[in-house]
Amino acid sequence: MTRFKFEISATDCNARTGVIKMQRGDIRTPAFMPVGTAGTVKAMTVESVLETGADIILGNTYHLMLRPTAERIHNFGGLHQFMNWQKPILTDSGGYQVMSLAKLRKMTEEGVAFQSHIDGSKHMLSPERSSEIQRLLGSDIVMAFDECTPFPATEAEAAKSMELSMRWAKRSRDGFDSGQEHAGRSALFGIQQGSMFKCLRQQSTENLLDIGFDGYAIGGLAVGEGQEIMFNTLDYATPMLPEDKPRYLMGVGKPDDIIGAVLRGVDMFDCVLPTRSARTGQAFTSRGPINMKNARHKDDTRPIDENCSCQTCRDYSRGYLNHLIRCDEILGPMLMSIHNITFYQNLMQGLRDAISAGVVQKFAADFLAKYRGGDVPEIKA
Amino acid sequence: MTRFKFEISATDCNARTGVIKMQRGDIRTPAFMPVGTAGTVKAMTVESVLETGADIILGNTYHLMLRPTAERIHNFGGLHQFMNWQKPILTDSGGYQVMSLAKLRKMTEEGVAFQSHIDGSKHMLSPERSSEIQRLLGSDIVMAFDECTPFPATEAEAAKSMELSMRWAKRSRDGFDSGQEHAGRSALFGIQQGSMFKCLRQQSTENLLDIGFDGYAIGGLAVGEGQEIMFNTLDYATPMLPEDKPRYLMGVGKPDDIIGAVLRGVDMFDCVLPTRSARTGQAFTSRGPINMKNARHKDDTRPIDENCSCQTCRDYSRGYLNHLIRCDEILGPMLMSIHNITFYQNLMQGLRDAISAGVVQKFAADFLAKYRGGDVPEIKA
Repeated sequence: MTRFKFEISATDCNARTGVIKMQRGDIRTPAFMPVGTAGTVKAMTVESVLETGADIILGNTYHLMLRPTAERIHNFGGLHQFMNWQKPILTDSGGYQVMSLAKLRKMTEEGVAFQSHIDGSKHMLSPERSSEIQRLLGSDIVMAFDECTPFPATEAEAAKSMELSMRWAKRSRDGFDSGQEHAGRSALFGIQQGSMFKCLRQQSTENLLDIGFDGYAIGGLAVGEGQEIMFNTLDYATPMLPEDKPRYLMGVGKPDDIIGAVLRGVDMFDCVLPTRSARTGQAFTSRGPINMKNARHKDDTRPIDENCSCQTCRDYSRGYLNHLIRCDEILGPMLMSIHNITFYQNLMQGLRDAISAGVVQKFAADFLAKYRGGDVPEIKA
Repeated sequence: MTRFKFEISATDCNARTGVIKMQRGDIRTPAFMPVGTAGTVKAMTVESVLETGADIILGNTYHLMLRPTAERIHNFGGLHQFMNWQKPILTDSGGYQVMSLAKLRKMTEEGVAFQSHIDGSKHMLSPERSSEIQRLLGSDIVMAFDECTPFPATEAEAAKSMELSMRWAKRSRDGFDSGQEHAGRSALFGIQQGSMFKCLRQQSTENLLDIGFDGYAIGGLAVGEGQEIMFNTLDYATPMLPEDKPRYLMGVGKPDDIIGAVLRGVDMFDCVLPTRSARTGQAFTSRGPINMKNARHKDDTRPIDENCSCQTCRDYSRGYLNHLIRCDEILGPMLMSIHNITFYQNLMQGLRDAISAGVVQKFAADFLAKYRGGDVPEIKA
C-alpha cells in the first residue's frame, strides 16, 4: 500500500488541486481539516463529520498527552480506534499549544518543560518526546516539533528562533524515523519558520529540504499579524517550498484567508473557527457570517443558508436554531457545528472544482463579493 | 384515519401490552416517552431518538410557552415541524412546572398567575389557556390542566386540591373540544388525583369518567413519597381506571419504578432521568447504574453494556466516555444520552415481549436481580 503520495491533477495560476494518498484514505486538496482537539471534533459525531465531506481531521498532541495521555490512547489501539475515526489524522507537535496554554514554561535546547494548565502536573516536550507521542497516538501525518516564533519579532529574535526550530526539525526527523513500523505507514511534515523575513524563510526552507520531509508547513503565521502581512509573506514563502509536496498553512483560518492562501499555492488548512464559532452562535453563510442568537432570526422559517445541503439546513429553521441557542440547548452547538464544517468543506470543494476548471480567480472573486455582501433581508414567519 | 385507538394485544397478571394508534404513528405500550422539554430531547438529534425505538416524545407546555412561545411555534407550523419530529408528541399541561419552577405564583379558581423563572415576565395558565397552548403546539396527546397535590397532604388538603383539579378537568375538556380541527386529530387525557387517599382517588376517577377522556393519567405520584408508597397507591389507584383506555404514570421513573408500575397495569411513562443522568455521567446498564466519570473506567476498553446494541456501545469504550466526560466534551452527553434512552426503550421492549409471552413476572424478577447485582469487575486495557 502507498505510504504517502501527492498527486497534483490541475493547477490554475499558483493554485493547485490534487490528492494525497495514504493508507487510511485519500485527502483531496486543497483540504480543510476540522480540529478534534481532545479526541473529538467538538459537538459532532464521527458520522456527521464524515457527512460534511472531511477527509482528515487534526488531533492536538498537547491536549491528548495531558488527557487521557498518549500511553493510554496507545493501549486502546491508537487515536483512530479510541475515537472511532478511521480516515487519516494529522497531529500537531504540541509546540504551539505548550507556549500558549501551559503554565511555568521553561525552554532549553533540549525542549520545553512545563506544567499542565489543567492540574499543574509537570511534563516535558522535546522533538523526541513529541515524535513518540504522535507515534503512540498512531498519527498519519506527524508534525515536526518547533517553536512558533511570536509576532512581532526582530530579525535577530526570528533568526534565533528559526535556527532552534531547524535543529529540532532534524531531531524530529530522527525521532520519527526511529519508530520504524509507524514510520512505514505515516508521513512527517517539516515547518518553515522565519517570521516576516524573506531571507530567514529561505534559510529555513533550505534547512528543511536538506533534512527532507513528506510535506511542508508554513509556520509562524496567523499569529496576529493580520491578513495583509500574512498574504505578503505567503507571496514569497510559498513558492520557496517544493512544488511536488503538500503545503500546509497551520491554524488558518477565515474563509477569505483560506481563499487567499489557496490562490498563493497552499494545499492544507486547519482551524477551530467553524466549530468554536458554532458554539457561540455564529454561522457561516455564502453571504457572510451571521449571529444566529440575534433576535431578527426568531421568526425566520428559512434555513441558515438556502444554498447549503447540510442536515441542519435541510431540516431546521433559523428560528429553531435561535431558540436552541437562547435556551443553551446542546442541540444548538451540534446543529451549528454540522453546518459550519459543511460550509468549510463546501468551500474547499468549490475551490477544487474551480482549480480543475481553470476558473479559480473568478470563483474567488464571486465568492468574496457575495460573502462580503451581507445577509439577505429579514423574513418573518 | 384513526384519531385514537388503544388495542390491547395481551395481558399478563395486571400488566398489559398493546398499541395506541394515532394519525402520526403507532405507540407501542408499555411506552416510555423521552422528555423534549424545550423542543429538543436534550443532547440528541431527532434521528438518534428515532434509532432508540421511541414512538412518542413529551413536550413541556411551561417551557415552550415562555420560550419561544406557543404562538411562535404555531407560526412555524407547530412543534413537530419546528423541531423536525414527525411521530406523536404528548404535551403536559404546564400545571406541574408552573408550581415547581415559576416565581410569585398566585393560584385562584381561574388558574395560576405567575412570573417566568427566566426573565420575570408575567403569564397566566388556566385550563382554557393550557388547552389553547397545547393546540397551538399541535400536540397529539393533550393533558388536562390540574394541580399536582403536594406530598404529604392531609385528607382535607388533598380533597380540596383534587376537587379543584376535577373542575379544571371539565374546563380542559371544553377547552380541548372548542378547537374542533385539532380535537379531530388528537387526544385528551384526564389526570386522577387524590394523593394517598383511596376514597379520594375513587372520587376523582368517577369525576373523570363522567367527563370522559381518551386516556387517564395517575397524578400526584413520584413527588417524594418513595417507591413503597407509590406502589401501594398504584395497587388500588390503577384498577379504578377503565381497562380499555391507556394509563399514564407521569414523571416516572427509575427502571425498577417502571417495572413495578407495568406489573400494576400502567401503560405509559415519561421521565427526564435517562437524559439528565447522561449529562452528569450516569449510565444505565443491565447490571445497574454506573458513574462513567469514575476513574476505574479510564482504561476500560469494554462498552458501557456488552448487552446493548446502541451506537454508543457499538463504537465507543468506557475509557473514551470517561475521557469525554472528564474533559467536558459535548460528545459525552451526546453519546451517554443515546445509550440511556436506548436502555429505557430496550427495557420497554423487553416488558412488551414478556407480557406477550406471558412471562412478565419472571422477566421482572430476572431483570431486577441482575440490575441490583452490580457492575462486572473492572477490566484493564
